[in-house]
Amino acid sequence: MLALSIIEELRAIVGPENLATEKQDLICYGYDATQMEFLPAAVVHPANAEETAAVLRLANQRTFPVFPRGAGSGFTGGALPKAGGVVLVTTRMNRILRIDTENLIAEVEPGVVTEDFQKAVEKLGLFYPPDPASLKFSTLGGNVAENAGGPRCVKYGVTKDFVMGLELVLPTGEIIRTGTETYKAVVGYDLTRLLCGSEGTLGVITKIIFKLLPLPEAKKTMLTIFDSIDGAARAVSTIIGAKIIPTTLEFMDYATLQCVEKRFNLGIPPEGRAVLLIEVDGDRELIEKQAARIHDLIKPLGLVQFRAAKDDAESEALWKVRRLVSPSLRDVNPHKFNEDIVVPRSKVPVVIRQIEKIQQKYDIPIVNFGHAGDGNIHVNVMINKEIPGQEEKAHEAIKEIFQAALDLNGTMSGEHGVGLAKQPFIEMELTPAQIRVMQGIKLALDPNNILNPGKIFPWKDTPHAA
Amino acid sequence: MLALSIIEELRAIVGPENLATEKQDLICYGYDATQMEFLPAAVVHPANAEETAAVLRLANQRTFPVFPRGAGSGFTGGALPKAGGVVLVTTRMNRILRIDTENLIAEVEPGVVTEDFQKAVEKLGLFYPPDPASLKFSTLGGNVAENAGGPRCVKYGVTKDFVMGLELVLPTGEIIRTGTETYKAVVGYDLTRLLCGSEGTLGVITKIIFKLLPLPEAKKTMLTIFDSIDGAARAVSTIIGAKIIPTTLEFMDYATLQCVEKRFNLGIPPEGRAVLLIEVDGDRELIEKQAARIHDLIKPLGLVQFRAAKDDAESEALWKVRRLVSPSLRDVNPHKFNEDIVVPRSKVPVVIRQIEKIQQKYDIPIVNFGHAGDGNIHVNVMINKEIPGQEEKAHEAIKEIFQAALDLNGTMSGEHGVGLAKQPFIEMELTPAQIRVMQGIKLALDPNNILNPGKIFPWKDTPHAA
Repeated sequence: MLALSIIEELRAIVGPENLATEKQDLICYGYDATQMEFLPAAVVHPANAEETAAVLRLANQRTFPVFPRGAGSGFTGGALPKAGGVVLVTTRMNRILRIDTENLIAEVEPGVVTEDFQKAVEKLGLFYPPDPASLKFSTLGGNVAENAGGPRCVKYGVTKDFVMGLELVLPTGEIIRTGTETYKAVVGYDLTRLLCGSEGTLGVITKIIFKLLPLPEAKKTMLTIFDSIDGAARAVSTIIGAKIIPTTLEFMDYATLQCVEKRFNLGIPPEGRAVLLIEVDGDRELIEKQAARIHDLIKPLGLVQFRAAKDDAESEALWKVRRLVSPSLRDVNPHKFNEDIVVPRSKVPVVIRQIEKIQQKYDIPIVNFGHAGDGNIHVNVMINKEIPGQEEKAHEAIKEIFQAALDLNGTMSGEHGVGLAKQPFIEMELTPAQIRVMQGIKLALDPNNILNPGKIFPWKDTPHAA
Repeated sequence: MLALSIIEELRAIVGPENLATEKQDLICYGYDATQMEFLPAAVVHPANAEETAAVLRLANQRTFPVFPRGAGSGFTGGALPKAGGVVLVTTRMNRILRIDTENLIAEVEPGVVTEDFQKAVEKLGLFYPPDPASLKFSTLGGNVAENAGGPRCVKYGVTKDFVMGLELVLPTGEIIRTGTETYKAVVGYDLTRLLCGSEGTLGVITKIIFKLLPLPEAKKTMLTIFDSIDGAARAVSTIIGAKIIPTTLEFMDYATLQCVEKRFNLGIPPEGRAVLLIEVDGDRELIEKQAARIHDLIKPLGLVQFRAAKDDAESEALWKVRRLVSPSLRDVNPHKFNEDIVVPRSKVPVVIRQIEKIQQKYDIPIVNFGHAGDGNIHVNVMINKEIPGQEEKAHEAIKEIFQAALDLNGTMSGEHGVGLAKQPFIEMELTPAQIRVMQGIKLALDPNNILNPGKIFPWKDTPHAA
């Protein structure tokens, strides 16, 4: 609950039409792609950095928590108002401010939808590669805050690799710029990259300067099916070892293949045990040469099917196998825990085999697919919450899956972040000294712990837990 | 001066053969590529993270400053012991620990010389692109601490873009790991990138995990000469606009050309006003196609000479023009202030013209060359310190040059950093709020301000100035 006088001040800052306090409105800003729900005390939609700053200054004066939120498409509760307080929605700040075709940069507000931005730059022959699965509704501010990834990251890098600078409202309500409009810049600490992936705990992003690339001339999609997971994994390292870095190396394990085939009958050969969807892009002649070379390279690795698209329509047909994964998963079990571990790419078959053992131990279906090129595997633990004990079993299994990734020099999360969902596990990955350093940085920027309190770190023995 | 008991403890930590306290030894660790000199009280050469940590714990107990140092090739005094204290040299930690050809990563100690590392990975068909001019003697630890650049960064990015993780001794003496061995990782704040370019103020790097690329199959070098600086600048944007991102786009202005020609007689045509050294790399057929396309694209832009190398020997001959710049500068004047401003690349001709005006105003020769592809210009203000007043004039001129870069949305430094040399100018680029945030981060990691105190920021009104 917020004091009425706070509500009045918020109304004065953003205007009555951009403040919500009624329960039916608040509910819409209390959930995300996790299954968690919380109710904020108020929701504000500021128009710009100045209004955002005023909200944060008020929050420091009156001590209430603020939870920045884009489209709410996060997978770990990073935008959820766990401690009540105010949800600050950035979607009104949704303008593409400029696209500079000479210097290959763009300046945007945080509420621009990822795909809208991609389309806008592509019209000008430019390219913004990061492509999280949520790109049709996720916002760029959220992408930066969570350091979003996607299939194309194996070649092009993650969101962070395209962020050159920010306009940022500090948790204290000051507005600063970080970074520059130049590719090289070494004056002071890199606050820009520190903000990328900080999950809304260090500041509210109100403008973003992105680096762009020239749009590749063409792309070539190949659907390849192997008789073993090891064959598919060896294909990945063989292709990269041959100096071809594909745009995309998406993989699906046998469990995933069975789901898709059972539901959609795509004619996947019965001896198929793993799929690798490969895409190369660039010069038109070069990618044809690369596709032929890839075929030669992977033939001896237990290849049971190789289909190369001749045009965009055929490419789309091949991508269908990958796109049908999510809708077919619900046939396995009604509820899903979607984790996104990462291991060095040569360890993908090792970790998949360990996950198979964990699946047998707990007797829960686990379906794996994801980005084989960078070792980022989406592990879907499928349960039925109606069956008593299944949820607890899933949590135990997930803990073992995280440990398997960490034992292979990997990480618990490559794209989704920590938020609330992974916070109970964070001490498996980070040492007390690492956590203390990060908490020190948080308090340096946010001395009253106003912004997204209680996220990422467990605040033991401090007054800062929310 | 350090208390004798501190010296004794340092000796016990690193061993007598790795401690220096005699003036003739100390002198060697008190200078770098600037013209500044300071004398430390002692120099230690720790063997590993544990010894480094012990030195830092002692520094916190007994309150003396510590200055980490690699090869001492820095251009801004970042490693200089301004406040006396202890210089901590990382060059004994000089092993390449592993090169993982399957996952395209390498783990090294900070004292490895940049070029040695490049050669080691190239033997295995891999590629570490960052190529600061000092690569024959600079160390990788220094490269990370300063976020080193180089000519190839226009295509491949700077050092930071290749650092995946660190072993780090915190200023308090704790040893932590940052980052992971995977390309995607979003658990906690990005301490790795925060350390890149932090100029030895936030921790001592004792191990680095680098990302590598496949070594490009071939390269093609072109020396192009234009009848105006605008022609050369338009060539840069035309090439990139045509979706070719060269590995290198090195530029030299007329003053630079005259220096080189006067001294070395390379046969540069008299109508030549600007040189662009262009290199493309990748697939052998593709780069031939790109070279032909580049020639077509730049012909109408006042091209007066185009020479394309047919092999490595010819390539080396073309690079000679660029490599002879530094040795020929001394003919202009005996002393040089070497700055490295950056502007968005389309603004290169604008800033060059402004520098010409500044040169006329102060009547000091200024010679410009550098990395046109990323707008990073090495501005060499050439003076004779014997002539009274010249040094002061140079400082005034440099201040105006920085302002010109900042007014064009650029930065004072793309590669060299702030250190001591640019600290007096830092408030031209960073606002008080930005500086306060960075100082807060520094104190979060280094509460006693032990590590490289008095660098980067002016510590006004605090007890932390050194």
